[in-house]
Amino acid sequence: MEEETLQVSSFNSLFSCFITLYSLILIYFPNDLLRIFLSPVLLISGALLLSLLRLGSTRESNTRPEKSYEILKEAEEPNVFLVLDSDLMGDFVEWNLRAPLEVIHEEAYDEEEEEEEDPNEKDPTRIQFPEIGDWNSPENIGFRWEEEDDDGGIGGEDRKRRSDEDGKATTAVKEEAGDNARSRLSSIYSEANASYSNNGVETETRKKKVVLLGTGWAGASFLKTLNNSSYEVQVISPRNYFAFTPLLPSVTCGTVEARSVVEPIRNIGRKNVEMSFLEAECVKIDPRSKKVYCRSKQGVNSNGKREFDVDYDYLVIATGAQSNTFNIPGVEENCHFLKEVEDAQRIRSTVIDSFEKASLPGLNEEERKRMLHFVVVGGGPTGVEFASELHDFVNEDLVKLYPKAKNLVQITLLEAADHILTMFDKRITEFAEEKFTRDGIDVKLGSMVVKVNDKEISAKTKGGEFSTIPYGMIVWSTGIGTRPVIKDFMKQIGQGNRRALATDEWLRVEGCDNIYALGDCATINQRKVMEDIAAIFKKADKENSGTLTMNEFQEVMSDICDRYPQVELYLKSKGMHGITDLLKEAQAENGSNKSVELNIEELKSALCQVDSQVKLLPATGQVAAQQGTYLAKCFDRMEVCEKNPEGPIRIRGEGRHRFRPFRYRHLGQFAPLGGEQTAAQLPGDWVSIGHSSQWLWYSVYASKQVSWRTRVLVVSDWMRRFIFGRDSSRI
Amino acid sequence: MEEETLQVSSFNSLFSCFITLYSLILIYFPNDLLRIFLSPVLLISGALLLSLLRLGSTRESNTRPEKSYEILKEAEEPNVFLVLDSDLMGDFVEWNLRAPLEVIHEEAYDEEEEEEEDPNEKDPTRIQFPEIGDWNSPENIGFRWEEEDDDGGIGGEDRKRRSDEDGKATTAVKEEAGDNARSRLSSIYSEANASYSNNGVETETRKKKVVLLGTGWAGASFLKTLNNSSYEVQVISPRNYFAFTPLLPSVTCGTVEARSVVEPIRNIGRKNVEMSFLEAECVKIDPRSKKVYCRSKQGVNSNGKREFDVDYDYLVIATGAQSNTFNIPGVEENCHFLKEVEDAQRIRSTVIDSFEKASLPGLNEEERKRMLHFVVVGGGPTGVEFASELHDFVNEDLVKLYPKAKNLVQITLLEAADHILTMFDKRITEFAEEKFTRDGIDVKLGSMVVKVNDKEISAKTKGGEFSTIPYGMIVWSTGIGTRPVIKDFMKQIGQGNRRALATDEWLRVEGCDNIYALGDCATINQRKVMEDIAAIFKKADKENSGTLTMNEFQEVMSDICDRYPQVELYLKSKGMHGITDLLKEAQAENGSNKSVELNIEELKSALCQVDSQVKLLPATGQVAAQQGTYLAKCFDRMEVCEKNPEGPIRIRGEGRHRFRPFRYRHLGQFAPLGGEQTAAQLPGDWVSIGHSSQWLWYSVYASKQVSWRTRVLVVSDWMRRFIFGRDSSRI
Repeated sequence: MEEETLQVSSFNSLFSCFITLYSLILIYFPNDLLRIFLSPVLLISGALLLSLLRLGSTRESNTRPEKSYEILKEAEEPNVFLVLDSDLMGDFVEWNLRAPLEVIHEEAYDEEEEEEEDPNEKDPTRIQFPEIGDWNSPENIGFRWEEEDDDGGIGGEDRKRRSDEDGKATTAVKEEAGDNARSRLSSIYSEANASYSNNGVETETRKKKVVLLGTGWAGASFLKTLNNSSYEVQVISPRNYFAFTPLLPSVTCGTVEARSVVEPIRNIGRKNVEMSFLEAECVKIDPRSKKVYCRSKQGVNSNGKREFDVDYDYLVIATGAQSNTFNIPGVEENCHFLKEVEDAQRIRSTVIDSFEKASLPGLNEEERKRMLHFVVVGGGPTGVEFASELHDFVNEDLVKLYPKAKNLVQITLLEAADHILTMFDKRITEFAEEKFTRDGIDVKLGSMVVKVNDKEISAKTKGGEFSTIPYGMIVWSTGIGTRPVIKDFMKQIGQGNRRALATDEWLRVEGCDNIYALGDCATINQRKVMEDIAAIFKKADKENSGTLTMNEFQEVMSDICDRYPQVELYLKSKGMHGITDLLKEAQAENGSNKSVELNIEELKSALCQVDSQVKLLPATGQVAAQQGTYLAKCFDRMEVCEKNPEGPIRIRGEGRHRFRPFRYRHLGQFAPLGGEQTAAQLPGDWVSIGHSSQWLWYSVYASKQVSWRTRVLVVSDWMRRFIFGRDSSRI
Repeated sequence: MEEETLQVSSFNSLFSCFITLYSLILIYFPNDLLRIFLSPVLLISGALLLSLLRLGSTRESNTRPEKSYEILKEAEEPNVFLVLDSDLMGDFVEWNLRAPLEVIHEEAYDEEEEEEEDPNEKDPTRIQFPEIGDWNSPENIGFRWEEEDDDGGIGGEDRKRRSDEDGKATTAVKEEAGDNARSRLSSIYSEANASYSNNGVETETRKKKVVLLGTGWAGASFLKTLNNSSYEVQVISPRNYFAFTPLLPSVTCGTVEARSVVEPIRNIGRKNVEMSFLEAECVKIDPRSKKVYCRSKQGVNSNGKREFDVDYDYLVIATGAQSNTFNIPGVEENCHFLKEVEDAQRIRSTVIDSFEKASLPGLNEEERKRMLHFVVVGGGPTGVEFASELHDFVNEDLVKLYPKAKNLVQITLLEAADHILTMFDKRITEFAEEKFTRDGIDVKLGSMVVKVNDKEISAKTKGGEFSTIPYGMIVWSTGIGTRPVIKDFMKQIGQGNRRALATDEWLRVEGCDNIYALGDCATINQRKVMEDIAAIFKKADKENSGTLTMNEFQEVMSDICDRYPQVELYLKSKGMHGITDLLKEAQAENGSNKSVELNIEELKSALCQVDSQVKLLPATGQVAAQQGTYLAKCFDRMEVCEKNPEGPIRIRGEGRHRFRPFRYRHLGQFAPLGGEQTAAQLPGDWVSIGHSSQWLWYSVYASKQVSWRTRVLVVSDWMRRFIFGRDSSRI
């Protein structure tokens, strides 16, 4: 998503507030709507809302007691609007990784910092094909030239013109390397760190081709932000639209229509960036020849050929993930997933089908009950939201049309863990479990699914008890797995034993050139402080005295915090206000009291706990969107930052990193629980549950829509639902 | 459709007018919207519109010169709003069958007027199973009783109670016929004309079961109108919704969303009528055992059994028709049809697919052109509307996203006749053909499709020239064919050589009891005057003088006009104002000048031309809806009219018909031509082409929606299209 939408602009928040207000009036006073519409109440409420927005900036402390959950009323809780008003406040709430989503500690991954690394030192087992140099190294151009030579003959003039534009170091190499790419590789390696300063001139003659795989959150926000006409973007995806996935559970029950949450990807890019789209699935990435191989859904030309390949200069992988079946037998064949818009549409028809089937004659009670037994596997936000949407759909709309079905419907939620919504605050979990019990949704905790056939699902409790439940429909929402194309690519680049593509903090795929990965298909491999502790000490110790003065350390501290965000997290978790507190504590432990200098051992002991704060980012649209925006901004400023790097100093090498590394800002998370109630966990550990959060949810989701078209459609869908209910026509 | 909606109520027309007005403002002054919204212009325009509505009642003469078409401006043409204001005017425009749709003269069908007929005289070849008596004859009840006896034992008390309630003539027969249905049949036949007056009392003990097959226009309007709690309605259809089919061409291109034109059938019936729905397809009708056999789409119970049967007391067949492929090879496999909502959705995805396919690399110009060649077969209203919708979609929306495709797209319309829209006025046809030529739609007249394969369509001109055209998508819209279940049923009842079920003027299927057929699956077999001329003369000649005085004839005239609507049509076509003109003319021809009496030969010569006015009704939703409403009203008043028949006198028998026969009122027809232009042919031979008709079209279609939900959705879809265009996401 674009910056303006992501860091919700004041205009959008205003819009959402008013929409929410109108919706509220519509819900609670439908008859008085016209009167209220014309009355001063509206203006007063608007003003009130605005003032609340401003009040929201007074933040509450983080040390809220967790004794029990507490449903906050909107009147006493101006801060629930906090997430809306980034621009109004001028300053953004700090990110909080405390418990945003299943945060997984990963085993340390042995790697070098690739900007500084010598290719000769590389681990040969990791990379299975010859290294083609460094990130953004100019040999890519040479490679392309050679291909041009092969195709179009000598091309001497063209080559000469480009050579003149190239930097002095690379020119000689390229002139020599006219006929043999392989022999040239080694010589290029020595030039790997040569500057790439002629990029700007280069683009005047030929635009850099950026191939973007995927049109999900990461891809769409990359496209929306990219604003540099020196790139030519080629988007490849089997879906020619961006889907606003947080509303998919609503689509399953017709609260929102499928078409209201999608926007053609061709509408998303900026006008001044040349963009083209190919509706095809990438089946193979070949980093050696800088090509991706794609397959179209349908026979294309007269021979029915469906495969084609696309060259790239930069490859951005944002293909997302697929549902994870954990290889449980029968899941693939019998369960519905909830990743794509089509999935949601299929679920919707299946629900209606179940009700129609159960209405047919010649069935006994038991069979009808089976048909109307809906099982949701996975107690994450998606599963929980679907279960509550379905409950509302059945109880608000379907029972009116199928009155006999009322007592036959059963919704069961199976969760392998001990609680649902484990990534949320304990208060939310408790509230959700209580609400589901009240609603008659059967929550079976600690139930691991072991087998599914076409009529029954078998689960095992932690105690080892087996149970087999007949079902009518299963929705499977237990987590994400790796797509085959990514798996294959990971094998190629020696990451075969991982679950997602490893990237560095700049989203570059480790071990590859000019390949970036973001969103659910990638994880950031955060460099550990302890691995670099010697280099950090050396860097900080400018006088080479073997000890660091406080001043020396303070100087590099901001760079260290930039480079290793876990330091800051650690300080925060310890309640410390600066690095000095940390150092003092370490010195106190080591007994070297009141010393103003510290040696490497003291530094080590001060920072040894820091790396425990390294956590994987959750697989959410929020992360993907922020990564897309970040990457697009890096692309925009590629030339500028080459000359004036703005990142932290290189700990192991010389100079500075070009860009500041990616940092995730958690803006909070919602868990709609049905019955116009939503649980919201906002940054700073605030929890809000109830109707007020539902309104906040409406506002946020309306303002986060990718286009005005979808915004209007989603809001009108909500209103339609309030007035007319959900439609149950089976189309 | 219900009466209120069909004969558009003033409230609905008002609503539509305002909606149209708002839309207009939105289109032409989007920026000034707010200002205008609050200005007095709105009120003034509203008042103007209302006055136009009233002015509409001043009708123009029928004798408008047909010299050339004339685009009428709304300012000079108040009558364009005529169709809206039935209630305002108080009186309805007379129907005009001059050219509503392909009106087919059918060969005379030899039949008796079944109310009077003696079963012994029946043609045994026509009916392949024993006749079970007459329409509504009480032996049906006897039959059911017997079944109950078989099931439940003696049931003597029940039988006795009912017998007491029965008429005296039937009682004896039924008491005797306890054990053998076949032997009873003959004795019941003699009671066939016995009165059925105990119906009302009967329903207190058991509701009459009406089985309705189909949820299209006919079925939905039947359901919407039926308002008598003595029936229990069982609806059976593979679709659990009613679809507003006139908007299907709009759905193909996303001008209107699919869900906006459908309404769950369970929402449509009245509260006080017990209604249940089964989602299944009727596969066989058995009039002997009064059962319909159905098959559900999916396996139902644990054995996967999909078949079941349903008993009926009355069967209403409204299954509609299917697309007619004329058995042309390859049509079934390669063409899209446009009968169902799913068809429209498939067409929509296929159009987008074609554009995406044509955007893929590795194709030559010719292949791309083939993929973007859309062929429409059939120049009727549906084909023409689809072609123009597609043209608008491509030129208004798709070219923005697929700029390269602009010069590759081609739309071709194939029509076997010499003109498109042959059922419309010549002026409309000419305008449409000119507009299509201007728009670049290639209209190939006189082209008969002979073969279709997966890439090419072969057509033959009238001159015998063959041509083969490569295509990307074909939409086939050439007319309607008979559904298999109806074909099978027609064979059973000896109508095997017909194209649709023959019914009498009261919509009863000929040769069956308690079976009604309406909509596209049926045609009304209008009795001819000349067949009954002797009986008419005898009926009119009360004095048995062998001659008719004018007075005598005038007395029966209104009944004759009711029974034989062709008389009235004939008079109108001759410009005569009453039957006296006709008789005078006949007398003048016969030389018996100024005579006030006329003999049978004179009457024959007066009426001999009349039967040429017997025409089949067009296969439109308008006809089906009116038939559904008519039939439901008959059902509502079944008991009342049994005692006090309100129909015309029986020409061949005694007494009166229970109901007035069905009469179709043509309310006009639209042909949207794209680019916000529509051709409208309204009753009284008025033609209006252009933007004004488009607004009329919006108003009429908004007001005709079956529910407020669909009305609001359709109108908001139109607005959304004006503001944001059509969506091209492939979902």
